[in-house]
Amino acid sequence: MYVIAEFTIIPLGVGLSLSQYVVKCEQILRESGLKYELHANGTNVEGDWEAVFTALKLCHESLHVMGVPRIHSEIKAGTRIDRAQSMNNKVASVQEKLKGT
Amino acid sequence: MYVIAEFTIIPLGVGLSLSQYVVKCEQILRESGLKYELHANGTNVEGDWEAVFTALKLCHESLHVMGVPRIHSEIKAGTRIDRAQSMNNKVASVQEKLKGT
Amino acid sequence: MYVIAEFTIIPLGVGLSLSQYVVKCEQILRESGLKYELHANGTNVEGDWEAVFTALKLCHESLHVMGVPRIHSEIKAGTRIDRAQSMNNKVASVQEKLKGT
Amino acid sequence: MYVIAEFTIIPLGVGLSLSQYVVKCEQILRESGLKYELHANGTNVEGDWEAVFTALKLCHESLHVMGVPRIHSEIKAGTRIDRAQSMNNKVASVQEKLKGT
Repeated sequence: MYVIAEFTIIPLGVGLSLSQYVVKCEQILRESGLKYELHANGTNVEGDWEAVFTALKLCHESLHVMGVPRIHSEIKAGTRIDRAQSMNNKVASVQEKLKGT
Repeated sequence: MYVIAEFTIIPLGVGLSLSQYVVKCEQILRESGLKYELHANGTNVEGDWEAVFTALKLCHESLHVMGVPRIHSEIKAGTRIDRAQSMNNKVASVQEKLKGT
Repeated sequence: MYVIAEFTIIPLGVGLSLSQYVVKCEQILRESGLKYELHANGTNVEGDWEAVFTALKLCHESLHVMGVPRIHSEIKAGTRIDRAQSMNNKVASVQEKLKGT
Repeated sequence: MYVIAEFTIIPLGVGLSLSQYVVKCEQILRESGLKYELHANGTNVEGDWEAVFTALKLCHESLHVMGVPRIHSEIKAGTRIDRAQSMNNKVASVQEKLKGT
């Protein structure tokens, strides 16, 4: 099962500067071989369901190892069986329709 | 790793009456042995990370088998290593403080 | 426009004990006259769009006044024009179908 | 109060092809003068709280006018009083730290 997901992982109890923890998750995603893209409110990830959710779990585990006592994550997960779709498709489909409006 | 989660699973392309699909996921959660609680915007689930995310995957797979072509889910996942916490704890802690205010 | 919403308001930079901030928002909701229900992953709120989002803004503002430097919120918002629906309806509809399964 | 938000607006009861509705919201955001950026799982928006949430409400209202009977939205909203921050800052801060890792 292929999934287009979004991870928003929020470390709690470690102050306000959270970018080092986002960096850690980006490294985990880079090593996972999954396709991913950082944006201002999270990271989009696409790939096989198992690989995507294994990466999510590894993010939680690795942040706890770094000393984060509490983590709140929000994940979006989109699956479909009618046709294949990628993150690029989704954005391109809207941008195509926006042209000329 | 213990997780307090929330599932909000939205079937797309099957019209407006979605309760039969929520029912399917409730049955999956019931059979999982996990602790869970339905509310107006999703279902709270707590337990071992693997068991919780296996149940989520099974919900997606089962809805697709029922004919749902596309599914959008949002999941919240809270983990902590400083102390144990349950769904009941979280609510009770607030309600205790609300008394007398 | 009537909305069934969920607020999950996460104060950052104030440590791990967040219940006093949840209490503050529950008080704001109580004073708003809106229908609301606390659960383990947020608070469900229903009512007129303007009143619901005014309450949300007041929660952010009040937590900042309490000294919270940074707040991350997630909100769900469901609107429909085909028929009236309440939080109670949504849950009852599923529970009715679950009986006897 | 300045907010960095994310809108994920899901029309229900109108089949599987949702890009025309995303286009409508992008047009609303374009006309709002707010800074926004479409990505594969939603649209990031930043600006004054009132302007951002007025745009969100207008998206719901406009989609209902287009005939969408039911809408489910998820919104993230980040506010902070310790320092100014933009969507670009957030991403740049992570990318800077990622360099050389």
